[in-house]
Amino acid sequence: MLNQKRFLMIPGPTPVPESVLIELAKHPLPHRSPEFSQILLECTEGLKEIAQTKLAIPLIFAASGTGAMEAVLVNLLTTGDHVLAVNNGVFGKRWADMASLFGAKVERIDCPLGSAVKLEQVKEALDKDKDKKIKLVLLTFSETSTGIANPIKEIAELVHNHNNEIVVAIDAITGLGAMPLKMDEWGLDVIISGSQKGFMIPPGLAFAWVGERAWKLHEKSKFPRFYWDWTKAKNSLLKDKTTPFTPNVSFICALKEALRLMLAEGIENTWARHERLKQSTRKSVKAMGLELLTSDAEASAAITSIKAPDGIEIKDIRQKLKKDWQIVVADGQGELQGKIFRIGHLGFVCERDILTGLSALAEVLHSLNFPLKPNWIKAYREALA
Amino acid sequence: MLNQKRFLMIPGPTPVPESVLIELAKHPLPHRSPEFSQILLECTEGLKEIAQTKLAIPLIFAASGTGAMEAVLVNLLTTGDHVLAVNNGVFGKRWADMASLFGAKVERIDCPLGSAVKLEQVKEALDKDKDKKIKLVLLTFSETSTGIANPIKEIAELVHNHNNEIVVAIDAITGLGAMPLKMDEWGLDVIISGSQKGFMIPPGLAFAWVGERAWKLHEKSKFPRFYWDWTKAKNSLLKDKTTPFTPNVSFICALKEALRLMLAEGIENTWARHERLKQSTRKSVKAMGLELLTSDAEASAAITSIKAPDGIEIKDIRQKLKKDWQIVVADGQGELQGKIFRIGHLGFVCERDILTGLSALAEVLHSLNFPLKPNWIKAYREALA
Repeated sequence: MLNQKRFLMIPGPTPVPESVLIELAKHPLPHRSPEFSQILLECTEGLKEIAQTKLAIPLIFAASGTGAMEAVLVNLLTTGDHVLAVNNGVFGKRWADMASLFGAKVERIDCPLGSAVKLEQVKEALDKDKDKKIKLVLLTFSETSTGIANPIKEIAELVHNHNNEIVVAIDAITGLGAMPLKMDEWGLDVIISGSQKGFMIPPGLAFAWVGERAWKLHEKSKFPRFYWDWTKAKNSLLKDKTTPFTPNVSFICALKEALRLMLAEGIENTWARHERLKQSTRKSVKAMGLELLTSDAEASAAITSIKAPDGIEIKDIRQKLKKDWQIVVADGQGELQGKIFRIGHLGFVCERDILTGLSALAEVLHSLNFPLKPNWIKAYREALA
Repeated sequence: MLNQKRFLMIPGPTPVPESVLIELAKHPLPHRSPEFSQILLECTEGLKEIAQTKLAIPLIFAASGTGAMEAVLVNLLTTGDHVLAVNNGVFGKRWADMASLFGAKVERIDCPLGSAVKLEQVKEALDKDKDKKIKLVLLTFSETSTGIANPIKEIAELVHNHNNEIVVAIDAITGLGAMPLKMDEWGLDVIISGSQKGFMIPPGLAFAWVGERAWKLHEKSKFPRFYWDWTKAKNSLLKDKTTPFTPNVSFICALKEALRLMLAEGIENTWARHERLKQSTRKSVKAMGLELLTSDAEASAAITSIKAPDGIEIKDIRQKLKKDWQIVVADGQGELQGKIFRIGHLGFVCERDILTGLSALAEVLHSLNFPLKPNWIKAYREALA
């Protein structure tokens, strides 16, 4: 029975509000119908607001986030194109690897795990691009595997100052909805995201917001594409108010409700709530005597990575949290497996959830003979004050 | 309120059983967990049974059916490969067009709309392949846009007698679960399907069953692929009991329940039920005085296409069915738009549903001054007897 008490504090899937779950439990609408078109158009408007854009066109795919990453490449690249990719961890590396696989010449900026990219590194890479060959920059907003946030606004500015035609594509799968992102104001050209993070829906939808510079590069791209084709998706949306292929109608109905909830809170309030969740988590965990992987300045508001304390195994922390408290936190990924655990505080998460999670973590640490400092609750109170 | 009485008699999404909807309404599981792995493996076993295979590996993608069609091509083709594609309508044409787009040399067998492919046509095409250049045959099991079923068993036999290395790929998106399909016994090499048809789930999952000949061709294929990569999916499934990228966990939990329902009925009973639904629909509709698009011998058990009666518009029939009876049937697609309407009898459909749908259709026809013949109910009773 208690497995039904399972509480996810991982960076996705994130908790789903009841009213969104109820949408999923409804009989599916026919996807070629005026009712569905109306819902799709409402979602499109909501998605614009979430990414703070009036200019870009949001497209919805039945896929998970990696599908949207692939779509960026096959919609923008021609074999041999030069791409600059920032690699802060598993997902940054994945995108860079994919770009190589799809025939691009990829210049990588590798960052130590747990660090954001430095503007100096980007400048250096752009300085090397004397012949203005770079067509596309791939950049992760919030790197899920480490919990850093990259300074995407500043990087987009640097890139466009170097060459105003370069398309800056942002993997905002984890970060969107958790931290300020202003697509038009910051000159971001493509944003991608997924349903199971800030959007508070199970995994199964991928989103791409495509701006003007990206549409121009897309027109020149010669990569063959069909399922991911942005032109097909745009034409279906704008001309026929639908999708070119059968959409995940149930998830799109759930998206309408999730967007209603997000916009009712107000995007700036959503960002502020995530900032509070991040601050209270980080300060409390530090007060417990634990060490964080990322610096305060570079930390994502979606997820906090905590280093394994001396003499305690990550798997023991995770197992005890799950067995004794029905709380699921994430292990490290790739090189960081067994070295960190990750607490997600993204989406449908309130201050009580963090208090619950931290209390359970404190009990687990205590039971594992970690010299727990008792003032973490004071730090929590202060962080929220 | 009455829009909640909406009853879908379209070829997908099909009606979803309550116990499947309830799975969708649950909080999502973490996808990297033993619980999810267990569910995924159970689904894999169930999928084998549905396609009657012990040898092929079923792979699950977060995508709709067109994604699985694309996956077949990017996993099997190398630019310039020769492909034989049977085109019976919108979906057969789509697959052939995609293969051309992805760089294959595509020989098409075009069939009149509403007709299955003739074995003679296939023989003729194979006879032309003197140098045994054809690597892949694309074939639709049940063409959704017309309602025909192709003789896939006989065609696979012809193809493999011509050249035992050719991969026969079957788009069974609509047909699987509705009509007998025995992957191993019939020597079918790849089957694809989608969640929103015979599987009684909303759209959002795509399936591929990949057999031995297909794995061999896959190894030689040089097309770049990432999201659709069968090797990645196979390795994740067999080694790590998971998916390479975030799966649609909610839909996979729903799939487990849907498979439980299908296997509890028994696949042969499911096929027999669809045959009864097809026969009763076809005989009753003909008894009403309407004309069918397809012959009895070539008709799919998933869907019945009915020609527009003289002087009556398809849109009037569809609108009245929807407005007066809350029943949604499908228009024709492509060239057949406005010329036929299509009644889906696929998935979670019982004899009462067909009686309901036919009664409402009879009322609509009567109200549109069609000279309705009264003996359709007798034909219905006889078809079920």
